Amino acid sequence: MRKRRKTTSYHPLKRSIKSGLAPGTPVFVGERKQDDVQISIMTYSHDGVEELRSATLEDCRKSVASDSIRWININGLHDVKTIETLTRQFSLHPLTLEDIVNSGQRPKAEEFHHYIFLVLKMLSYDDARKTFSIENISLILGENYVISFQEKKGDLFDPIRDRIRTGKGRLRSSGADFLAYSLMDAVLDGYFIAIEKLGDHIEEVDEAILAGNDTGQMAVIHRMKRELLYLRKSVWPLREEISQLEKSSSPLISAATKTFLRDLYDHNIQVIDMVETYRDILGGMHDTYLSSISHRMNEVMKVLTIIATIFIPLTFVAGVYGMNFQYMPELEWRYGYFVVMGIMAVIGGGLLVYFRKRKWI
Amino acid sequence: MRKRRKTTSYHPLKRSIKSGLAPGTPVFVGERKQDDVQISIMTYSHDGVEELRSATLEDCRKSVASDSIRWININGLHDVKTIETLTRQFSLHPLTLEDIVNSGQRPKAEEFHHYIFLVLKMLSYDDARKTFSIENISLILGENYVISFQEKKGDLFDPIRDRIRTGKGRLRSSGADFLAYSLMDAVLDGYFIAIEKLGDHIEEVDEAILAGNDTGQMAVIHRMKRELLYLRKSVWPLREEISQLEKSSSPLISAATKTFLRDLYDHNIQVIDMVETYRDILGGMHDTYLSSISHRMNEVMKVLTIIATIFIPLTFVAGVYGMNFQYMPELEWRYGYFVVMGIMAVIGGGLLVYFRKRKWI
Amino acid sequence: MRKRRKTTSYHPLKRSIKSGLAPGTPVFVGERKQDDVQISIMTYSHDGVEELRSATLEDCRKSVASDSIRWININGLHDVKTIETLTRQFSLHPLTLEDIVNSGQRPKAEEFHHYIFLVLKMLSYDDARKTFSIENISLILGENYVISFQEKKGDLFDPIRDRIRTGKGRLRSSGADFLAYSLMDAVLDGYFIAIEKLGDHIEEVDEAILAGNDTGQMAVIHRMKRELLYLRKSVWPLREEISQLEKSSSPLISAATKTFLRDLYDHNIQVIDMVETYRDILGGMHDTYLSSISHRMNEVMKVLTIIATIFIPLTFVAGVYGMNFQYMPELEWRYGYFVVMGIMAVIGGGLLVYFRKRKWI
Amino acid sequence: MRKRRKTTSYHPLKRSIKSGLAPGTPVFVGERKQDDVQISIMTYSHDGVEELRSATLEDCRKSVASDSIRWININGLHDVKTIETLTRQFSLHPLTLEDIVNSGQRPKAEEFHHYIFLVLKMLSYDDARKTFSIENISLILGENYVISFQEKKGDLFDPIRDRIRTGKGRLRSSGADFLAYSLMDAVLDGYFIAIEKLGDHIEEVDEAILAGNDTGQMAVIHRMKRELLYLRKSVWPLREEISQLEKSSSPLISAATKTFLRDLYDHNIQVIDMVETYRDILGGMHDTYLSSISHRMNEVMKVLTIIATIFIPLTFVAGVYGMNFQYMPELEWRYGYFVVMGIMAVIGGGLLVYFRKRKWI
Amino acid sequence: MRKRRKTTSYHPLKRSIKSGLAPGTPVFVGERKQDDVQISIMTYSHDGVEELRSATLEDCRKSVASDSIRWININGLHDVKTIETLTRQFSLHPLTLEDIVNSGQRPKAEEFHHYIFLVLKMLSYDDARKTFSIENISLILGENYVISFQEKKGDLFDPIRDRIRTGKGRLRSSGADFLAYSLMDAVLDGYFIAIEKLGDHIEEVDEAILAGNDTGQMAVIHRMKRELLYLRKSVWPLREEISQLEKSSSPLISAATKTFLRDLYDHNIQVIDMVETYRDILGGMHDTYLSSISHRMNEVMKVLTIIATIFIPLTFVAGVYGMNFQYMPELEWRYGYFVVMGIMAVIGGGLLVYFRKRKWI
Repeated sequence: MRKRRKTTSYHPLKRSIKSGLAPGTPVFVGERKQDDVQISIMTYSHDGVEELRSATLEDCRKSVASDSIRWININGLHDVKTIETLTRQFSLHPLTLEDIVNSGQRPKAEEFHHYIFLVLKMLSYDDARKTFSIENISLILGENYVISFQEKKGDLFDPIRDRIRTGKGRLRSSGADFLAYSLMDAVLDGYFIAIEKLGDHIEEVDEAILAGNDTGQMAVIHRMKRELLYLRKSVWPLREEISQLEKSSSPLISAATKTFLRDLYDHNIQVIDMVETYRDILGGMHDTYLSSISHRMNEVMKVLTIIATIFIPLTFVAGVYGMNFQYMPELEWRYGYFVVMGIMAVIGGGLLVYFRKRKWI
Repeated sequence: MRKRRKTTSYHPLKRSIKSGLAPGTPVFVGERKQDDVQISIMTYSHDGVEELRSATLEDCRKSVASDSIRWININGLHDVKTIETLTRQFSLHPLTLEDIVNSGQRPKAEEFHHYIFLVLKMLSYDDARKTFSIENISLILGENYVISFQEKKGDLFDPIRDRIRTGKGRLRSSGADFLAYSLMDAVLDGYFIAIEKLGDHIEEVDEAILAGNDTGQMAVIHRMKRELLYLRKSVWPLREEISQLEKSSSPLISAATKTFLRDLYDHNIQVIDMVETYRDILGGMHDTYLSSISHRMNEVMKVLTIIATIFIPLTFVAGVYGMNFQYMPELEWRYGYFVVMGIMAVIGGGLLVYFRKRKWI
Repeated sequence: MRKRRKTTSYHPLKRSIKSGLAPGTPVFVGERKQDDVQISIMTYSHDGVEELRSATLEDCRKSVASDSIRWININGLHDVKTIETLTRQFSLHPLTLEDIVNSGQRPKAEEFHHYIFLVLKMLSYDDARKTFSIENISLILGENYVISFQEKKGDLFDPIRDRIRTGKGRLRSSGADFLAYSLMDAVLDGYFIAIEKLGDHIEEVDEAILAGNDTGQMAVIHRMKRELLYLRKSVWPLREEISQLEKSSSPLISAATKTFLRDLYDHNIQVIDMVETYRDILGGMHDTYLSSISHRMNEVMKVLTIIATIFIPLTFVAGVYGMNFQYMPELEWRYGYFVVMGIMAVIGGGLLVYFRKRKWI
Repeated sequence: MRKRRKTTSYHPLKRSIKSGLAPGTPVFVGERKQDDVQISIMTYSHDGVEELRSATLEDCRKSVASDSIRWININGLHDVKTIETLTRQFSLHPLTLEDIVNSGQRPKAEEFHHYIFLVLKMLSYDDARKTFSIENISLILGENYVISFQEKKGDLFDPIRDRIRTGKGRLRSSGADFLAYSLMDAVLDGYFIAIEKLGDHIEEVDEAILAGNDTGQMAVIHRMKRELLYLRKSVWPLREEISQLEKSSSPLISAATKTFLRDLYDHNIQVIDMVETYRDILGGMHDTYLSSISHRMNEVMKVLTIIATIFIPLTFVAGVYGMNFQYMPELEWRYGYFVVMGIMAVIGGGLLVYFRKRKWI
Repeated sequence: MRKRRKTTSYHPLKRSIKSGLAPGTPVFVGERKQDDVQISIMTYSHDGVEELRSATLEDCRKSVASDSIRWININGLHDVKTIETLTRQFSLHPLTLEDIVNSGQRPKAEEFHHYIFLVLKMLSYDDARKTFSIENISLILGENYVISFQEKKGDLFDPIRDRIRTGKGRLRSSGADFLAYSLMDAVLDGYFIAIEKLGDHIEEVDEAILAGNDTGQMAVIHRMKRELLYLRKSVWPLREEISQLEKSSSPLISAATKTFLRDLYDHNIQVIDMVETYRDILGGMHDTYLSSISHRMNEVMKVLTIIATIFIPLTFVAGVYGMNFQYMPELEWRYGYFVVMGIMAVIGGGLLVYFRKRKWI
């Protein structure tokens, strides 16, 4: 239980360790998700691509001079020293550095003089544990370069690397802003997949409930509700973030890319719609579940009570003729026993008919 | 169950298949609702009408040169190649093409340099299955032309074709913007019909509940609530879309048409009002249903418990005189039996009177 | 049941019959509330009043030339032809005509070049059937004239006619805009009366519930909630409508009248406040009702269960001494019977004392 | 019951009597709270104070000429004639007059050419009847004068009179705007006291509920919720009112006073915070109450059912050996009775142990 | 109970004692949390630091002349005289003084001509009593100086003092605005710690509920909900406060510091997110708790009812053969007793099988 929650953590990620430090002091906040920091550099222009799969800080420093578009990707954030050096090479603000290594950030866009800082949440749905895992992605969009920071190595950006290598699409012929957009688009595409999986899970649970197989479904519904809570925290601020970029007057973002950002905004609204729809659907499932539970319980209680009610008057009659009075005329009748048994059958049958007539059974 | 949901799908329509593709790559997302793509072209001016019922892409290309108003209608979206060619003829943005073939779009208006792109949802209520079916409609409003994309052939736009042919109303004497407005108006008129039918269904269920015939009504109420959820997703964004057109500074929309758009906006607000009212009414029905169920249950339990309660003390009395003590004076009394029977009648009657007095029965 | 709902209809008023017609085609949508169309004209200035109680279209046409303020009132909207002719005389937009004869309109203000079109809802509370009846009122405010359209003859505007005739107040000395304001004020005054009556009804129900007389009150509360739903739809849009007039830059509305419109706006806010307060109060009554029902039920069940619980152990004791074992020493004791009876009295009394101590009875 | 509600009336205060009257016709709407109208005038400047405790209309008229700051206070609003004369002396708008004598007004600020009209609600909590009583206060802020209208004589403004008399604070050296502010501040101070008392009452009820003494607490909670409903209607519009004054460009309000108005605004926000917090707390109390009631009920039912359940099998065993079969071997055993009694003890004890183990008792 | 509430008081802090006083009259409102007022002064510039740990008012007066940055910290607010003198030395507005000594203030920023007044709430979570304690912090940011007012001595600002002393970070080289920002940042860091602790507590309760150990958890959940209510009142207004500073045009705040304020704003949004998430989680826990309680209760009732239901028909059969009719053939059968016992076993077993089949047990 505890373990799971750590992942999609609403927990402040032990930010408390930072308390008292000067603002702008970079401290890694989060889980160490891989061992070493990996740096890769892609330098491309319309004419060609150059790729450095395990680059050093020195390579980064050199690349600053280049005229082509550069994409520097960093996997692993726990080695604060390395990241600090890197950010200094690109003269990033200390607060940006602090935010990059703090995986508890919420999605936002911050414009600085010579770069734009973007925070995104990468989402994946763990089919086995039925939970989302959320990873922090930071992007730096500067003139002619994009730096992306991931908590751990993932394959989310592979299709983009492929597109750069093959030169398909408009990536190679567009600027760094289009690369940044493409990365954001890849992240958002991941949301669709994750929510689709959650949706399948919700449908399974829905069908299980309708089929009356409802042991423990309440807990599942509640857990999924909580998952959606975390999800909302990732997608709602993203809306504002994209809208801010779209309206930005920064020269770093071209008009052509803004058309694509508008499309991205629409996709994000679609994701929000889906999240909100699932929330409503889960709410409805919760109600259906509760009312089906209580309906079943009522049925049980009703049938049992009816059985008791029929036999209690009969038992009374039997009790009457079990009394030991010396003078009880019926006892001496030849067919008294059978008459009484008949009366009891009539009473029982009458009650049954009455209950049926009132539609209680 | 599964089938139904596919239609009014909150499902992301397997957008996941698109993940990793370059933005602007057109991929058909949706259900293939008809076999072949049908293109029809109407060219009209104040003076006359020319109609091509099964046109080819070549016909479309030729029509570009025309001075009259052209309305190109496409039924069937799965043949991406054809649609791509068509959009290239009218130099539409790749993102527009991508949106046209993706039936999961939400209603929106997007202004490009030389055209306006509109997405609408066509609504029809399936009386038999008691569900809405929602179809995507895309409109391209350019200078002197309108292109409409439907997922499958429908009769929604037939009255407009008739009006163009006969020259009644102001259609023939107005521009392409009025045609686009007329198409939107036709779609919105369809909402009124669909919601009217849903309303009839809601009234039927309401009356069934009040008549006490409530088996399974809970599930029906929940399903209708879900239907309204999807419906809201179609009509709320439409509001923004129409308002955007009304306030647009694009030369493609004339002031005269804007007056009509304002009217359309009002109709849409009316639709929204109806949807929200039905939501509230369904909420109220849900409450009434629950309280009527629990009221009935209470009545049953009460009556049964009262029967049991009356007989339990009587059975006790009978039990007392069924004891086998050697010395029990009452047993030897001549009329002991009748006295005890009388006492029991008094107890039973007294309890009945007491219960009635306290209004329990 | 069906009948009632027709009146305060959330039903789209069979707008479906309009589907497919050209926008601006006038079709009467609503119930035919009176047989013939009645037209009356009041022409007045500071100096005098002229009144035509059953005017013809010809009279209307002539009045256009007049310099005095003219108030043309039309009762009955089903004769579309007549109303169409009239609106053409005053060169009204076809959409205005369409809206006038459609009683399903929501309150709104629309400014055209030479006139302002206003839609209002007249409200009256039917004491006998405990429902609101809502009637559509349309006003045309032009230069020097006001045209008012009512679904049927009513006495709402009589005080205003009296004030014009007698010359009291500022009506005779003000322009057409003040007349339009006065008509709106009269409609709003009607709201206060209607809500007052609803309030009395709510109080009656509240007292009945507190007095424990609650059969069927649930249905009444739900019906009143629904009534308030319709009411809200009349008063909320009115707020925007008045505010729009107040801020209008149209020369048709003078600054002096705007002060009065601000007052009207305040009255409308008061009406909204009352409606929302009643909604909250009804919500509270609903809760009280439910909890009083369940409380009563609990009381019943508790008392009955306690009776049963006391007698069940006693019956057991009696059953023990009703066993037929050959050797049961107690049975042969001289006072065995009385001892056992005493023990049973102690058990019963003890349970009673215990229950009372735990405050169960 | 009826009586109480009249006081904090959500009732439209029989505004219906006004229906049909010309706008601006002053009609007293409210309860006549005192017999005669009392007018008092304070004329003060930096140098001195002059006080007229029972002034006449003539005194008011004369005071108009004065150069000092004048504060005219009127207690009692039912004598419409007197108030009409007074307002005419200061050339107030007829709508202002109408609003002054209508105690159903909601808080608002209205700027006219030469004065500002303010409506406030004075609040006091009646400790005995546990209800708020709400009184209407109207203020006219003109150049060098303030006129205040109260429904009945109260001591709310006495501290301000004292401060004027003694010359303490900045009142004597400031303008009429500071006097108006001081009066508003006094009204708001009254809110703190009233809500403090309500808070004490809420705490008492909360403790009574936690102590299990909950007879009738439901009704109390509901009544307090209703009281807060009325309260909200007084404080929320006040927020807008003060904010409007603060941002007003009227020369009647000086920059120095605006600093104080900002402070007043903060106080009002604090009052709103408190009201909303109490609403949330009452909502929580409602839930706690319901769940404690149902918990107690459950406990009762459980214990009673357990008693019944233990004795029912035992009674069955006793019943078996009460059967009259001729051949029942156990009956003839020497210690049959004791064996059976032992078996019954084992069954009863066993059930008790089982129940305890499952934590049912 | 009463004690606890005093601390996180929603109580208006007996503001009533202020009623009737002139606005701007400083009255200490709150709890006296320490005995004497302590003043400390830090004077620093890029070159060095001077520290006065127990300063006098005289020291403060002298420091006014200094050119370096001065930070005056005051612990203890009950000695209104001292604080009044101090504020007069810095020519603060009387309303500022009044707000400083009133611990019931809500967070706000107020700009005056020569200084900015800030109110913050310091938060700490008392692990033992599981409640937040909230303390009022006031900051005065003037040209080259910051004055901070705390209700009692705390160690929250110690890290900042250390940073000034050691000259680490940019504090020594920045202006007074950066100092004010650093103090606010320290307060906000405290929020993370406090909410982290609350989160741990919520998780403990959640796990206890899931483990079925739920005695009294309802009260705990309600108390935590209330705590979050108070918390929200501290963090929501802070958002507006920081945003106001960030957008301020005051020369007292430099552009460089504004970048840091934007970061602070983000942190505050994160805190708000956490608070809202915890609210939702507590709401969900409440639901889970209720449904687990009712589920358990249902289980108990069902099992008990089933036991009763099985034995009631059996007891009836036993009762039948306990009747004393002279002619009851079964009684004379040789194996009548065993046959009946067998029949009873069959009935009981049959019911058990039936119940199991319907999944009732």
